[in-house]
Amino acid sequence: MNKIISLPFINRSFIKKIILFLFFMSLTSHAQIEKVEPPFWYAGMQNPELQILFYGKDIAQYQVTVSNGIKISNVKKTENSNYIFVTIDTKKGAVGDFVFTFKNNSKETFTQKYSLKKRRANSAQRKSFDSSDMMYLLMPDRFANGSRNNDSENNTKEKYNRDLPGGRHGGDIEGIIKNLDYIAALGATAIWSTPLCEDNDAAFSYHTYGQSDVYKIDPRYGTNDDYVRLASEMHKRDMKLIMDYVANHWGIEHWMIKDLPTKDWINQFETYTQTNHKRTVIHDINASEIDKKIAINGWFVPTMPDLNLKNPLTLKYLIQNAIWWIEYADLDGFRVDTYNYSDPKGIATWTKSITDEYPNFNIVGEVWMQSQAQMAYWQKDSKIAAIQNYNSYLPSVMDFTLYEAISKVFNEDEVEWDRGMIKIYDNFTNDFLYPNSNNMLLFVENHDTNRFNQTYENDVRKYKMAMTLLATVRGIPQLFYGSEIGMAGDKNKGDADIRQDFPGGWEGDQNNAFIKEGRTPGQSEYFDFTSKLFNWRKTKKVIHSGKMTHYIPDSNIYVYFRYSAEETIMVLINNSNETKSVKTDRFKENSKNFTSGKDVVSEFTFDITNEIIIEPKSVLILELK
Amino acid sequence: MNKIISLPFINRSFIKKIILFLFFMSLTSHAQIEKVEPPFWYAGMQNPELQILFYGKDIAQYQVTVSNGIKISNVKKTENSNYIFVTIDTKKGAVGDFVFTFKNNSKETFTQKYSLKKRRANSAQRKSFDSSDMMYLLMPDRFANGSRNNDSENNTKEKYNRDLPGGRHGGDIEGIIKNLDYIAALGATAIWSTPLCEDNDAAFSYHTYGQSDVYKIDPRYGTNDDYVRLASEMHKRDMKLIMDYVANHWGIEHWMIKDLPTKDWINQFETYTQTNHKRTVIHDINASEIDKKIAINGWFVPTMPDLNLKNPLTLKYLIQNAIWWIEYADLDGFRVDTYNYSDPKGIATWTKSITDEYPNFNIVGEVWMQSQAQMAYWQKDSKIAAIQNYNSYLPSVMDFTLYEAISKVFNEDEVEWDRGMIKIYDNFTNDFLYPNSNNMLLFVENHDTNRFNQTYENDVRKYKMAMTLLATVRGIPQLFYGSEIGMAGDKNKGDADIRQDFPGGWEGDQNNAFIKEGRTPGQSEYFDFTSKLFNWRKTKKVIHSGKMTHYIPDSNIYVYFRYSAEETIMVLINNSNETKSVKTDRFKENSKNFTSGKDVVSEFTFDITNEIIIEPKSVLILELK
Repeated sequence: MNKIISLPFINRSFIKKIILFLFFMSLTSHAQIEKVEPPFWYAGMQNPELQILFYGKDIAQYQVTVSNGIKISNVKKTENSNYIFVTIDTKKGAVGDFVFTFKNNSKETFTQKYSLKKRRANSAQRKSFDSSDMMYLLMPDRFANGSRNNDSENNTKEKYNRDLPGGRHGGDIEGIIKNLDYIAALGATAIWSTPLCEDNDAAFSYHTYGQSDVYKIDPRYGTNDDYVRLASEMHKRDMKLIMDYVANHWGIEHWMIKDLPTKDWINQFETYTQTNHKRTVIHDINASEIDKKIAINGWFVPTMPDLNLKNPLTLKYLIQNAIWWIEYADLDGFRVDTYNYSDPKGIATWTKSITDEYPNFNIVGEVWMQSQAQMAYWQKDSKIAAIQNYNSYLPSVMDFTLYEAISKVFNEDEVEWDRGMIKIYDNFTNDFLYPNSNNMLLFVENHDTNRFNQTYENDVRKYKMAMTLLATVRGIPQLFYGSEIGMAGDKNKGDADIRQDFPGGWEGDQNNAFIKEGRTPGQSEYFDFTSKLFNWRKTKKVIHSGKMTHYIPDSNIYVYFRYSAEETIMVLINNSNETKSVKTDRFKENSKNFTSGKDVVSEFTFDITNEIIIEPKSVLILELK
Repeated sequence: MNKIISLPFINRSFIKKIILFLFFMSLTSHAQIEKVEPPFWYAGMQNPELQILFYGKDIAQYQVTVSNGIKISNVKKTENSNYIFVTIDTKKGAVGDFVFTFKNNSKETFTQKYSLKKRRANSAQRKSFDSSDMMYLLMPDRFANGSRNNDSENNTKEKYNRDLPGGRHGGDIEGIIKNLDYIAALGATAIWSTPLCEDNDAAFSYHTYGQSDVYKIDPRYGTNDDYVRLASEMHKRDMKLIMDYVANHWGIEHWMIKDLPTKDWINQFETYTQTNHKRTVIHDINASEIDKKIAINGWFVPTMPDLNLKNPLTLKYLIQNAIWWIEYADLDGFRVDTYNYSDPKGIATWTKSITDEYPNFNIVGEVWMQSQAQMAYWQKDSKIAAIQNYNSYLPSVMDFTLYEAISKVFNEDEVEWDRGMIKIYDNFTNDFLYPNSNNMLLFVENHDTNRFNQTYENDVRKYKMAMTLLATVRGIPQLFYGSEIGMAGDKNKGDADIRQDFPGGWEGDQNNAFIKEGRTPGQSEYFDFTSKLFNWRKTKKVIHSGKMTHYIPDSNIYVYFRYSAEETIMVLINNSNETKSVKTDRFKENSKNFTSGKDVVSEFTFDITNEIIIEPKSVLILELK
């Protein structure tokens, strides 16, 4: 120190620089790894290649080696020296730990332990959800507050405030676990929870689609262990856990967004550019390049940076993140948010990579399009997408055209060529366009739409008609939490209105709809019908995989059959405002020699030899005998 | 006679029987051929097989032989002894006449001459209509009465009565021929006339879709020779004649319907059964058999027996009838009525048989469906139909979804996600579904729909927007007679209202819109715009076959480009009610280094480097420079 100071040409400014230099040298020489992602991995995956992200101040200045004879196949450094992406070949990596060693030019070194864990038995061959399931969609912040301890957390910005419609209401994983028996009693066999990973936005984080850490459950919902416990509790009850995966965007608070590995980790424009939402550009042979770019690369909102799935690093990161959760939490399926807002090739690779690892794993994509052809484009092995040599590899799509029809039809008392039950019938006339119409998610609403009971002003008759449809046509029925007790909610008032707290989920709730005694008579009528219907459906193979024949609706009455060699179910939906007599001779090819049918809900037996009398706005689900 | 009468066991009744027997014997021994169809044929067809129908009282009792070494490959007798279907191999049949000899067991014989005529040069390779054409659709009874001599005819029931909206008004082929120059002046290059073959119904025969003789022009329209003359006069003007072919049904007065060759020549039910019009049953994997049967086999109306194209005799008859007209009248194309009301396999065979003979022959089918996928199903080599191993072989379909969009859009001043010009844009986003979207017929109306000028209350600005679309997007524009002078007509008042007489087509018409001086100023505005637009289009290869790029409509303004290596056209349609400035930087990928554009209609030149100002409810068609 003295020597330096005594040198005549050294001025104060220079000294400052030296001190700063030494300060930073001391930092780098003590380079610490802040993040390793995936934090661990599993031995014996189909794809032996693993890309590990190491994040730490100027970590790119280091050379990486690894122990245990593991082979490093690639080391990728980016324009941001705080990242190294190391790809190893896990083929020879047995279960166990090994060590990465980082060494820089100054021979400074540090190490990082890494684990390859043992997979569960038959992990790769795990079963998934299918048309034998009924899926219960819930928003964890709004379902039940199982623990008050995590209502607010130090490391997440937004605090508990149940007075704010769009604030955090305290619902959590514990709340879901506590009410699993309620959900099971409803006849549901699967739960799709909206995202649970950390979303550190300062506001509206309750919806959790703007994730800030995709390897960590949001502490306000619980811990990663809690999530694993949820899966485990569900599996004990023969129920399936479906994760809501968001591949299109992260939250603005994501740690990588704050220190981007590469500029093109996300899709960036000169100025903020919102998506035009026109995903038809993907198949439109007349589309302009600029419209295509904005559709795929434009952002949803300024707080949700749009991930660039054309960047192989990003894509690989997302693939591994998804697989990690399947292994870690023992998942039974994915629902993928905004599926076709991502680069089509990228999201297809993401999907295929997962199903290559888990051939039976079901993934349902949100593909909100206007026609059956456009939706069918997105289902795996689509002949329509094949026109353009595209294959999404996405096993399941959502039946948005059915949803649109259901949102209008029960108010259409008068019949026109395109009004009344013909609208529902028409939806199914296009089933041939889908590679697998039985692997579609059926819904009357979800967390993004008006509530069914709002649209239909709590006319329980209409609810029963809609649920009957969902429960008896092809596909996988999905119920949105609360509708089963008549909950309404007006999308026009904002999202919070359709995402209200489930009554009974909070200490001190006057109305506890989770228990029979707590329900109002009105809630009970909804619940009892729903529960009876879907519990009946649970064991009905003829519904899960039987054939369907439907008849052109006459006088606003839709009649169809589900049948197999063993059983025949006849469904009648009278959407008119009159009691009707339905002559049965027209249905001979399905009703065959059956003479009567027992209604699933009322348990009354109807003579079907000649005619069936059906009340206005009502249904019959007849097990033919 | 005496001998017989003297026999004691002969009673009066027996005598009667004998007399009757002798009477019929005398008839059969003089068996006369009443019909031979086709009446003659052509030598050197691709398919050498020819099925000739001979019709005469008990003709089936005869054996048939033929002269000139012609080979009879099949003789088919049906349950009706008045028919013989003789199939010959014309391979060796040079041009010329030969003789069929009919001989019965009593050695009675008679003969029938038959001719194989010479085909026109290059008949098989004839050109047809395509996207370089503009098609003028007219109804002959309502277009122009060229000759008063044929207004009523002895052999057809319905007589001239112009006072009846649905009666015969006297229009005829002569009227069309007289006004060919008018049609040509409009920029039309092809005429689709609704059917001209004899329709002997007692009422409403003017529409002529219930034909009573498919080898004969209705005498009230003229003679077969007149029809040939029409084609010839059109060809002199480089125009194309398109016949309206009806394969699905005939009229109740058809001579064969009155004496059916086989019960299943037509589709019959125990009681009269109308089609349910639900042609989706054809591809619907959930459809019931009874619904399918009624859709395809049900009749349109009691006066139109539904032809059974599953009957090989019927199918062959219809194929040959179509080919006969092509050769005989030198046709340039077919429009096929109610294309997908026929047995799908049968109508595909019909279509393929024709295009096998004439590889360039264009056929446009009326396939009135609700979605692009459903329409695309019916175009030749559809990948969608291939899902079900179906191929219609139909080269061209009508763009009904575009028609539906056009019928609403110009009244949609406010923009929503599905309202305004987005509706038009959306139609073209699905072009990938079509094997050939440039071979589609584009229309704003036809003889079955409300009149465009009725829907839009003669707002000529809306007419101009619609015509601009038709004239500048992919496909073949079609105009319905009279709209080019602003004719309106209300479908709700009945079909006659949309099929009114063209002013000037009748002696004594006060208003003669066929000539410039005869048009009102209002009519002139319609006509002059239409004429200018379509005459411009006539030579614009960039429109006929150029590429298209369109941009997502913004503020109800739709902008698209048609371009080739040689030329670029920029079209702007402002459907809003405001004058708008359209910034041009967004269109750079198409506007490139062009700096100005000359508007086709106004002939004004616009600077396009920065912005383009466009009036409310108006269009610009800019040839970029």
